[in-house]
Amino acid sequence: MPLLSEINSPSDLRKLPVEQLPALCREIREFLISRLSVNPGHFASSMGAVELIVALHYVYDTPYDRLVWDVGHQAYAHKILTGRRDAFAGQRTLNGISGFPNPLESDADTFMAGHAGNSISAALGMAIADKLTPENRNRKTVAVIGDASISGGLAFEGLNNASNHPNDLLIVLNDNDMSIDPNVGALHSYLSDLTTSAGYNRIRNKMAGFFRKKGILTDQRKRAIIRFSNSIKSLVSKKQNIFEGLNIRYLGPMDGHDVIKLVQVFKEIKNMEGPRLLHVCTIKGKGYKPAEDDPAAWHAPGKFDPATGKKISVSSDILPPLWQDVFGETLVELAGMDKSIAGITAAMPSGTSMSKLAEAFPDRTFDVGISEGHAVTFAGGMAAAGKKPFVAIYSSFLQRAYDNIIHDVAIQGLPVTFCIDRAGLVGEDGVTHHGLFDLAYLNCIPGMKISSPADEETMRNLMFTSLSINSPYAIRYPRGRAYHTDWKSEMKTLEVGKGRKITDHADAKIAILTLGPVLKDAMTAASLLEDQGIKTDIFDMIWMKPIDMGILSDVAQRYDAVITVEDGALEGGFGETVEHHIREIGSGIKVKSLGVPDRWIAQGTVDQLKNLCGYDVEGIISAAKELTSNTKG
Amino acid sequence: MPLLSEINSPSDLRKLPVEQLPALCREIREFLISRLSVNPGHFASSMGAVELIVALHYVYDTPYDRLVWDVGHQAYAHKILTGRRDAFAGQRTLNGISGFPNPLESDADTFMAGHAGNSISAALGMAIADKLTPENRNRKTVAVIGDASISGGLAFEGLNNASNHPNDLLIVLNDNDMSIDPNVGALHSYLSDLTTSAGYNRIRNKMAGFFRKKGILTDQRKRAIIRFSNSIKSLVSKKQNIFEGLNIRYLGPMDGHDVIKLVQVFKEIKNMEGPRLLHVCTIKGKGYKPAEDDPAAWHAPGKFDPATGKKISVSSDILPPLWQDVFGETLVELAGMDKSIAGITAAMPSGTSMSKLAEAFPDRTFDVGISEGHAVTFAGGMAAAGKKPFVAIYSSFLQRAYDNIIHDVAIQGLPVTFCIDRAGLVGEDGVTHHGLFDLAYLNCIPGMKISSPADEETMRNLMFTSLSINSPYAIRYPRGRAYHTDWKSEMKTLEVGKGRKITDHADAKIAILTLGPVLKDAMTAASLLEDQGIKTDIFDMIWMKPIDMGILSDVAQRYDAVITVEDGALEGGFGETVEHHIREIGSGIKVKSLGVPDRWIAQGTVDQLKNLCGYDVEGIISAAKELTSNTKG
Repeated sequence: MPLLSEINSPSDLRKLPVEQLPALCREIREFLISRLSVNPGHFASSMGAVELIVALHYVYDTPYDRLVWDVGHQAYAHKILTGRRDAFAGQRTLNGISGFPNPLESDADTFMAGHAGNSISAALGMAIADKLTPENRNRKTVAVIGDASISGGLAFEGLNNASNHPNDLLIVLNDNDMSIDPNVGALHSYLSDLTTSAGYNRIRNKMAGFFRKKGILTDQRKRAIIRFSNSIKSLVSKKQNIFEGLNIRYLGPMDGHDVIKLVQVFKEIKNMEGPRLLHVCTIKGKGYKPAEDDPAAWHAPGKFDPATGKKISVSSDILPPLWQDVFGETLVELAGMDKSIAGITAAMPSGTSMSKLAEAFPDRTFDVGISEGHAVTFAGGMAAAGKKPFVAIYSSFLQRAYDNIIHDVAIQGLPVTFCIDRAGLVGEDGVTHHGLFDLAYLNCIPGMKISSPADEETMRNLMFTSLSINSPYAIRYPRGRAYHTDWKSEMKTLEVGKGRKITDHADAKIAILTLGPVLKDAMTAASLLEDQGIKTDIFDMIWMKPIDMGILSDVAQRYDAVITVEDGALEGGFGETVEHHIREIGSGIKVKSLGVPDRWIAQGTVDQLKNLCGYDVEGIISAAKELTSNTKG
Repeated sequence: MPLLSEINSPSDLRKLPVEQLPALCREIREFLISRLSVNPGHFASSMGAVELIVALHYVYDTPYDRLVWDVGHQAYAHKILTGRRDAFAGQRTLNGISGFPNPLESDADTFMAGHAGNSISAALGMAIADKLTPENRNRKTVAVIGDASISGGLAFEGLNNASNHPNDLLIVLNDNDMSIDPNVGALHSYLSDLTTSAGYNRIRNKMAGFFRKKGILTDQRKRAIIRFSNSIKSLVSKKQNIFEGLNIRYLGPMDGHDVIKLVQVFKEIKNMEGPRLLHVCTIKGKGYKPAEDDPAAWHAPGKFDPATGKKISVSSDILPPLWQDVFGETLVELAGMDKSIAGITAAMPSGTSMSKLAEAFPDRTFDVGISEGHAVTFAGGMAAAGKKPFVAIYSSFLQRAYDNIIHDVAIQGLPVTFCIDRAGLVGEDGVTHHGLFDLAYLNCIPGMKISSPADEETMRNLMFTSLSINSPYAIRYPRGRAYHTDWKSEMKTLEVGKGRKITDHADAKIAILTLGPVLKDAMTAASLLEDQGIKTDIFDMIWMKPIDMGILSDVAQRYDAVITVEDGALEGGFGETVEHHIREIGSGIKVKSLGVPDRWIAQGTVDQLKNLCGYDVEGIISAAKELTSNTKG
């Protein structure tokens, strides 16, 4: 890779003649394929944004000028060009670089970008800040946002505020016509319409070409062409322009894979004043045929053979099911029993396996796009009209619907079931994606019921129990696989707030209370501890709210100490709640809580991170030993 | 009031001949003026929506057909017409009816409406649910939303999803050209442009009138007129129509005070298929000149003399300052010292007193409209560009920016100061407005600093301290007035995480730990307790995170018991945190936490509600007595 290997910073890139950029783009794609086939990551989006990233760094004076990514798993080429080419081999691994832009990692990453839709608001903050700072008045800020992200409420709020205060923000709409799953929403069909207005670009280019050939393409004339194009466009495009309606100058659409033209256009518009949006069309997976053909499957494909595109994975037949599939398939069964059940996902039908309901009951499945707030309020409306909605959203994304949970569901006591996927440490996606806070932020809400299954059977029973719970109800479960290949047990209703005793030793001095699949680690630890002469008893609490006061009373009386284990933040979490209620009983026994400590956790495998946080098998064992020596002493 | 006094339900209303509706509207206005001048509430919005409400209940088969209000403080006439005319005298008071629509109160209130922007999403949920239910297929749902609410991201997400699944939702855009404070944002200027396109309505009405006179206004023809009007409109209106761009049929704008015409239009469009939006223009404060002239001042005017419009209030000169003014005026002082300071509010410049900064430093003050999520991410962007933003948002509204706080500020450790107004019980606005959860939902976020001042001096010092805190930082303070008329103390930097001992008795057995202005109640209680021979010592903790471990260690050693007092939810709150850290030290002393218990709290005065929750002076005294008798025993 003769070009790429010499580029250690954007200024190296800018030394290349523009004609070499297409070759560089090819090298970047080869690099991405070779690295991501071995060390998996987000593939299709990153392949689609190569020219865009090269052109932006080529024209803008980065990192002084600021590029603000949205979601940011498209920005691998950006990482590679900004001094992290070698580090890229370790992306998404422990102590390696993050899979998303992260300001703590590089100055070139101007803002955190793991949750969709924040780039316009953040970049607007920067662009306006610069206008207030004399020495930065000419500093440029560019927000890049995808066509899926722009349909979220936060992006709209950003667009709606873009023209209120002086700024020269450029918004690049990277329109690849799909998010992780195919795009939904009216804005999406609106953008599709715009894109097909081929006439607009043809006329615009013809005019500019004419003046350019004559050597008289002055800045003034360029501006006139842009103005003229804007007025043409409103005639040419079938629908009217939503961006211009929001006082944002609209430019485009244009081919996002023509790097030379992109450079030319960025140069032309770099010094334009006022907020403006360039609509760029790209192809997800561009340059790698298997990914172009099935971009959703190549969003994050895992390891693959670069030559054939064959994915390298163990056959899933012999593996236990993914938690999300236990959810998805069980929901289909429930929906077959109860017509009032509906399923709602926010742009994650595959990620949450809500796709299974969509196949079986398309009329009762709703993908609202990247609009978590709407998803929850919409569910509240459905529940108010007598339906039984199941909302499946990843824990860290559900943070975006916090007020909706409180105001539009919980205060009214509406029977919405929140199926909180990716709860706990998620591993490689890292700090923005760990689902650590749900227990704390839900536990303070009056009337909320919060549960977590330790195994498939309990998961199914908790979902089944939803049918008889006529109030807000949360079931949290992690990323990854459950335990049993034969898991479709018959379902039964569980008693709300009732845990279960897993082991019962007459001479155990320590009780281990678990919430969720960490039960398995506790059982392994208990067995190893027993080998060493330390007897423990295990309780699977199942419910955090209401908590099983019966178990807590027994535990407070019978044992010398309690260990709690949870896959979430300790602050305000399960352990603190157990401790609080044990004190309430009047007991003074020692409570040691294991979980995620009060600091940010970066990427790594789930096992590595659990170990770091001290709540894996090893952590449970050492906590038990410590308590034993303390109580002995 | 010959008409109104006979109306005890919407069906009574529907017995009136249409010609009597203007007279009824006049009676409703008189009723509102007579009641609200004595028992204050939201005045101007409610006056503006009278005809809209009468026409909707007249045409639609409410409560079977559903009206979904947004914010809902406009919906007083709705309450009066749906069986709560007499109860209205007690609105916003303890055990009375709520000031907002509340499904727990009446079937006619189909959804909770205290936070702006949820009506479209909720109503869409209902409208789609009905389509899935054979017996409800013809049930109608109408969402009413204001022009300020519709600029929020949630409303946009609702609009963007309105055309994805079959439904006949009618959205009424009640455009009174202002929210509590004048409206901001590009959508606002866009709507203003539309409204001035008078030609559109004229032509439409002329056509319909022509056919009607001839007696040949068939349904088919009506539909043709509507279609025709839509195509006219896109020529007539200066800008293109954002709603049609989102596949929502746009109708209007029309006069929202012509009740006869409203009835006619609602009848015409009631059975139309598919989602559609009727744009209705109203005047805030309509029918009461003082309010029409200054609607912002008459949003919630307090008591007034109906004859003169003179507001009845004690001169504020002799009163201590509002907490929000301590914030607002101190921020102006700080902004004078430090050019990097900026202020951000979400449609609440008056409510938060950010208006004071806007007067002094307009360039550095940003009102982003009802867009709390954007407000926080925008602040994150400004902070990333070297500014020091202060974001002032009410506690319960800040719930809407939870993910933004985590993802766009806290993970990155950006120096944004959150000034959390209306923290704690707010009184008359009730369940949707109490700011109870902020301590719990912020405490689980790593690196967040959380403080609350007990008095003006501490408030000023905490704000000043922000200048030396280079990380996310929250200051929470309540609604209402602080304590000292002479409050502009010289500011100094406080040590982060350092509380202060207020009293020190050698023989005190109980320590009272407070967070925030509840200190005053604790001091009163302590003095009364001392009269009864019970000595206590008081600690003003100031910081919840990091908490003062020095004080906690001392307290654990020196006292027999601890009382904590906080103005917020006990679950995950200050008291539980104190308890947890005291256990961490290894102490077994009794901790009794006073605050808001784990249930929803309705409206009433702050004093009444604190008493109900048991954390007023009386509550502190009885907790101390109980602990004393326990520890003696």
